[in-house]
Amino acid sequence: MIELIIKKRNGIELTKEEITSIIDGFTSESIPDYQISAFLMAVYFKGMTRAETANLTDIMMRSGELIDLSEIKGIKLDKHSTGGVGDKTTLILAPLVAAAGVPVAKMSGRGLGHTGGTLDKMEAIKGLSIDLSREEFIAQIKKTNIAVCGQNANLVPADKKLYALRDVTGTVDHISLISSSIMSKKLACGADAIVIDIKVGHGAFMKTIENAEKLAATMIGIGEKMNRKVTAVITSMNEPLGCTIGNALEIKEVIETLKGNGPEDLTKLCLELGSHMLVLGEVSENLIQARKTLNNLIDSGAAYKKFEELISAQGGDLNVIKQPELLPSTQFLETYKSTNEGFISELNALDIGLASVKLGAGRETKESVIDHGAGILLKKKIGDYVKKGEALAILYSNNPASFTKAAELMELAYTFSQEKPLEKPLILKTVH
Amino acid sequence: MIELIIKKRNGIELTKEEITSIIDGFTSESIPDYQISAFLMAVYFKGMTRAETANLTDIMMRSGELIDLSEIKGIKLDKHSTGGVGDKTTLILAPLVAAAGVPVAKMSGRGLGHTGGTLDKMEAIKGLSIDLSREEFIAQIKKTNIAVCGQNANLVPADKKLYALRDVTGTVDHISLISSSIMSKKLACGADAIVIDIKVGHGAFMKTIENAEKLAATMIGIGEKMNRKVTAVITSMNEPLGCTIGNALEIKEVIETLKGNGPEDLTKLCLELGSHMLVLGEVSENLIQARKTLNNLIDSGAAYKKFEELISAQGGDLNVIKQPELLPSTQFLETYKSTNEGFISELNALDIGLASVKLGAGRETKESVIDHGAGILLKKKIGDYVKKGEALAILYSNNPASFTKAAELMELAYTFSQEKPLEKPLILKTVH
Repeated sequence: MIELIIKKRNGIELTKEEITSIIDGFTSESIPDYQISAFLMAVYFKGMTRAETANLTDIMMRSGELIDLSEIKGIKLDKHSTGGVGDKTTLILAPLVAAAGVPVAKMSGRGLGHTGGTLDKMEAIKGLSIDLSREEFIAQIKKTNIAVCGQNANLVPADKKLYALRDVTGTVDHISLISSSIMSKKLACGADAIVIDIKVGHGAFMKTIENAEKLAATMIGIGEKMNRKVTAVITSMNEPLGCTIGNALEIKEVIETLKGNGPEDLTKLCLELGSHMLVLGEVSENLIQARKTLNNLIDSGAAYKKFEELISAQGGDLNVIKQPELLPSTQFLETYKSTNEGFISELNALDIGLASVKLGAGRETKESVIDHGAGILLKKKIGDYVKKGEALAILYSNNPASFTKAAELMELAYTFSQEKPLEKPLILKTVH
Repeated sequence: MIELIIKKRNGIELTKEEITSIIDGFTSESIPDYQISAFLMAVYFKGMTRAETANLTDIMMRSGELIDLSEIKGIKLDKHSTGGVGDKTTLILAPLVAAAGVPVAKMSGRGLGHTGGTLDKMEAIKGLSIDLSREEFIAQIKKTNIAVCGQNANLVPADKKLYALRDVTGTVDHISLISSSIMSKKLACGADAIVIDIKVGHGAFMKTIENAEKLAATMIGIGEKMNRKVTAVITSMNEPLGCTIGNALEIKEVIETLKGNGPEDLTKLCLELGSHMLVLGEVSENLIQARKTLNNLIDSGAAYKKFEELISAQGGDLNVIKQPELLPSTQFLETYKSTNEGFISELNALDIGLASVKLGAGRETKESVIDHGAGILLKKKIGDYVKKGEALAILYSNNPASFTKAAELMELAYTFSQEKPLEKPLILKTVH
C-alpha cells in the first residue's frame, strides 16, 4: 500500500488491479484508514485519469449488491441531482416521465445541511414507506412503471465507507471522487441511462461553471467506459428552486406543478430534464417532441395521476394528496417582511437553506429529527419589486424561538437594487 | 481537525496554536491517525512556511524530555549526518573536536537499510555501552568533554510517533517534515550549535543538490527562529565514504584516521566538518586556524587519545582499540574480483550498502540482528585503474551463502571507463 500511495503521490496512473487491492483492502479493513486517507489526499492533489476514475467506479459498484432490472422491459432511466435548496424535481420528474412510458427505478437519499432529500419529502405523506425490498421495488415498477425508495444498506458499501472517511479528512470535494461516488450508486441501481442535474451557484456544491463542466465530463466519461448513456444538464442554484423549502411545503408545490400550476423556474427545469429522459429512454425522437409529450401529460392530468399511483403503491394516504391542507403543518408561522424597497437582485440559496434548517425543516447532523411541517414559503423571488414592510416569505416552525435565528439568516440572503436585475438563465449548459 | 486539514490543503498558513492542537491531539490520540495522515499528505503537496516549520519543530521538541546541558561550560556542539554508506565521521569528529576543547554531547542512532548507524559501530567494541542515563551522560562530558550515547526513549516522542506514521503513508520525503524531525531531536538534546552534513547522491536520501540546498536552508531557518547556530555542509555520497562498510571494519578505519593514516576522502570530510565545529564552538577564529588545530591534534596523537578516553569512559575494552585485529571478524571472507579492465568511473554507494546488508553488516528490518564482523573492504575506489581479475574488494561474512547475493549487488555498483574520470568534489557547498 505504501508503494501505491507513493505512486499516486508522484502522479503515476494506477492499474485496475492496484485500485482493486486498495478498495478491497479498505472494505476488508486489511489496509488501515490512515493509509487510505493519505491516498485520498494524494488523489486530491494529483487527480485520477479517466481510466482510473472509471475503474474506481466499477470496483465500488461491485462492492455490494447489484440491482438487476432486466426483468423490466425498456430502457430504465435514473435521474440524479447534485443537490440544492428547494429541489423537489425528482418527485415531479419521476411520475411525469413514467407517465410517458419510461420505467423509472429511482433510489433516493436524505437531506443533510442546507440541502433537502427526496426521501424526507416523501415521508411528509402519511403512511408512505420508502423501504421497499428488491422484489417489491421491481414488482412495483412492473405494475406502475415507477418506484422511488431508499437505498438498500447493501448497495455500494465501499462508497459509504469511503465517503465517511473523506468527510473527516478534507477530501470530499474532488471531481473524480465525487463522480465515482455518484456513478457507482447510480450504476449499482441498474439504470441503463442517467440524466444528471449539476447545480452550480451559492446553494450548490459546485460554485463555478468550470467545475460543473469538469464534473459533467467526468461522469459522462465513466458512463462511456461502462456503456451507459449519460446526459448532464448544468443548472443554476443561486436562488432556491420554486417557492417552497421544507418537506410538506414542497409536496404541495410538487402537486401544483404536476397539475400545471407550478412556479415558472421549477416547471421549466422539470420539462428540460424530463425531455432529456424521454430522448434517452427512446420514447421521443427529439427534445421538441419530448417537451410536447410532457406538456400534454401535464395538461391531461396523466402526470398527476401517475404521482397518485406512486403514492398509493407505496402506502401513502391519498387523502393528503387530494387535500394538501391535510399535510403536516406547524403550530406557529411568522411573516418575514422586507426592510428595504427595491428589486430583489440576489436571494442566496445557501442562506435560505440554512434558515429552513433552523426552523426544523432539515438536519444539522445526521442524527437530527426533521419536522415535516416546518419550512419557508417564498412570496418574492429575484427580479420582484418589493416595498418596505411587504412580505418576502412565510416562516413555518413548531419552535417559536427559531424564528429569530432563521430571520437573521434570511436577512443575509437578500440583496436589493434600484434597477431591475437582468434575468439570469436557469439552464446553463447541456453536456452529452 | 477537518478544518485544519482543509486549511493546509488550501495552502493557508497555520498558526502555532493550530499546529500545537494537531500535535497534542496526535500524541494524546484524541485525533485519529487517518486525519493526521491526510494532513501530512496535504503538507507534502502544499509545504510549510518557515514559521510553520519552526513551530512544528518547537512543539515536537517539547513533547518529551529536554536535556539541560547548562551545567557544562562552553558552547556545546552537535553534529548530524543525513546518513550514507561507510559514514563513520561521528566517531572521528567527536574525539577530534573534543580534544580541541569543544564539549561534544552526542546522541546517535542505529542503522537501517543501506545506511549504517553510529551506535551499531560502537557496539562492535567489546564491553562498550551506549545506554547512559542523563546524569551519566552529563557527568562524562564534564569529565572527558565527550559522550556518545543512544537516544532516551522520552526524547521527542511526538517525532517518533509521527515518523512511524509518515513511514507507512508515503509522507517521509518532504523537506519541512525531514527538517523538523531532525532539528527537534538535535534541539531537545540541548546543543547550542549544530553542524549538519547533508549527503547528496546515489547512497543518500537527497538525490539532487537542489533538494539538499532546500533542506539546508530549512534547517538553518529553524535554527535562526530558535536561536541556535547551524552550519550545513553539503557533501557527495555517490561512492562510499572511506574504504570500509561494516561495523568492526569501520572502527578500524576510525582508529587509522584518528592516527592520521585514514583514507583521503574520509580525512578531508572530517577536517572540513570539524573546522566548522571549532568555529561555531568559538575555539578557533576562522576555518584556516581551525584546520591547523585539528591537524596538530591528529599529529600529536591527542585526537586518538581522546577516542581511547571515550571508549574506556563508556566501558569499552581498550585492548581491542590498541590491537584492532581483536575486533570482531568473520569466519569467511571472499575476494571480489574485477571482470573488467579500466578506470572505475562509478561506484554506487547504494548498491555497496545493500551488499553489506546481505553480508550481515546491516539491518533489513528494524528487528534484524547485526553481525559486527561482517562487511566490505574496498581495495579500489573511483578513479583507480584495475585489471581483469584484480581484487576490487574483500567481502566478510559468517554466512557463506550470502556471498553470491552480495556479489550480484556489487556487480551493479561498478562502472568502468577507458579514460580516467574527472575527479568530482567531495565537499559541494557550505551554507550558514
